[in-house]
Amino acid sequence: MQLYSYFRSSAAFRVRIALELKGLPFDIVPVHLLREGGQQHTPEYLARNPDGLVPLLIDGDHVLNQSLAIIEYLDEAYPQPPLLPGDAGQRAHIRALALAIACEIHPLNNLRVLKYLKRTLEVSEDEKDAWYRHWITLGFGALERRLASDSRTGRYCVGDTPTLADACLVPQVFNAQRFAVDLAPYPTISRVFAQCMQLEAIQRATPAVQPDAE
Amino acid sequence: MQLYSYFRSSAAFRVRIALELKGLPFDIVPVHLLREGGQQHTPEYLARNPDGLVPLLIDGDHVLNQSLAIIEYLDEAYPQPPLLPGDAGQRAHIRALALAIACEIHPLNNLRVLKYLKRTLEVSEDEKDAWYRHWITLGFGALERRLASDSRTGRYCVGDTPTLADACLVPQVFNAQRFAVDLAPYPTISRVFAQCMQLEAIQRATPAVQPDAE
Repeated sequence: MQLYSYFRSSAAFRVRIALELKGLPFDIVPVHLLREGGQQHTPEYLARNPDGLVPLLIDGDHVLNQSLAIIEYLDEAYPQPPLLPGDAGQRAHIRALALAIACEIHPLNNLRVLKYLKRTLEVSEDEKDAWYRHWITLGFGALERRLASDSRTGRYCVGDTPTLADACLVPQVFNAQRFAVDLAPYPTISRVFAQCMQLEAIQRATPAVQPDAE
Repeated sequence: MQLYSYFRSSAAFRVRIALELKGLPFDIVPVHLLREGGQQHTPEYLARNPDGLVPLLIDGDHVLNQSLAIIEYLDEAYPQPPLLPGDAGQRAHIRALALAIACEIHPLNNLRVLKYLKRTLEVSEDEKDAWYRHWITLGFGALERRLASDSRTGRYCVGDTPTLADACLVPQVFNAQRFAVDLAPYPTISRVFAQCMQLEAIQRATPAVQPDAE
């Protein structure tokens, strides 16, 4: 498998976590989102992925995009260990936690959104950073209340094995740390994150150890 | 089943489409997102859904949130007709199309984001509308290229039956129309949308015919 990835992309990081948790071998094809006006905008890349976004996973004949769709694919094609364990209700709960990050927090802090804020709306650097932290704070607040009050929360977001929800949580916490968001109000998120970071599989997926890391 | 819904919410609209396509009976519990400072922020609602977002679906003991997670649940619990038909590769393709709307377009045009733009960043009404249209134009451009070039595109987004991708596409086209986005550059999207709108099930899910429509 080839994963088109950028070391700092949260969405690529999610897929790297899933691949590593499943022990699947893969090669990284670096796509630098900032260099040369963004390598995701080259005709060669757009031919493969018209969205102009990372990640993209190639597995044989399958050309797959959108991180959550890729991880669902991996869980169907390579079921062990399952990243969506349990019955339909629990699987919905895992997906809802993942989407609370992937739909409610991350899209607002995407590179192209921050660019629009700066270039088109001409907001200041401070306003841009406040925007970034606002959506993390709002989203993590809701996520913390949910995790702290749900009986299905275990050592990880759901139960005692890492799931799709953790694959989304870890990169989002990395982003929060990068923008100096105080994590003290989120003890459950912090505890689950610390648990995740003990796993060698997740350590291998982190930005700093990627071949394209700067 | 009870669906906590707001007639104009795209995310609730997606779930209404899925329920109607599957012929599942459900009651609407209206949650007015603008009245009384937002009924999604009441303590009663937050106790059920800490995110303070619609939709929320209650099916027996299951309390489900996040529209895509709810639709995946419905597809597992009530498989006919399938909204994610095909093998792992095709299911990933359907999910990727849905996520290209649910992650790349819709979150940026959510009510709370528009409020932040106006109240905190103090952008003008014109700037806010331009923002709204920008993300639809960018997202629909990529989606059109993908649908037009993929051999799996049929009468609907994928094949000749409506799927999760169509359940996301239809509400997004409604939003585009509401903000007067020119749809001429998106002939495939427009064709699929017209096809969808011929289905009585989808007509029953539209905002105008909801019990809380204004």
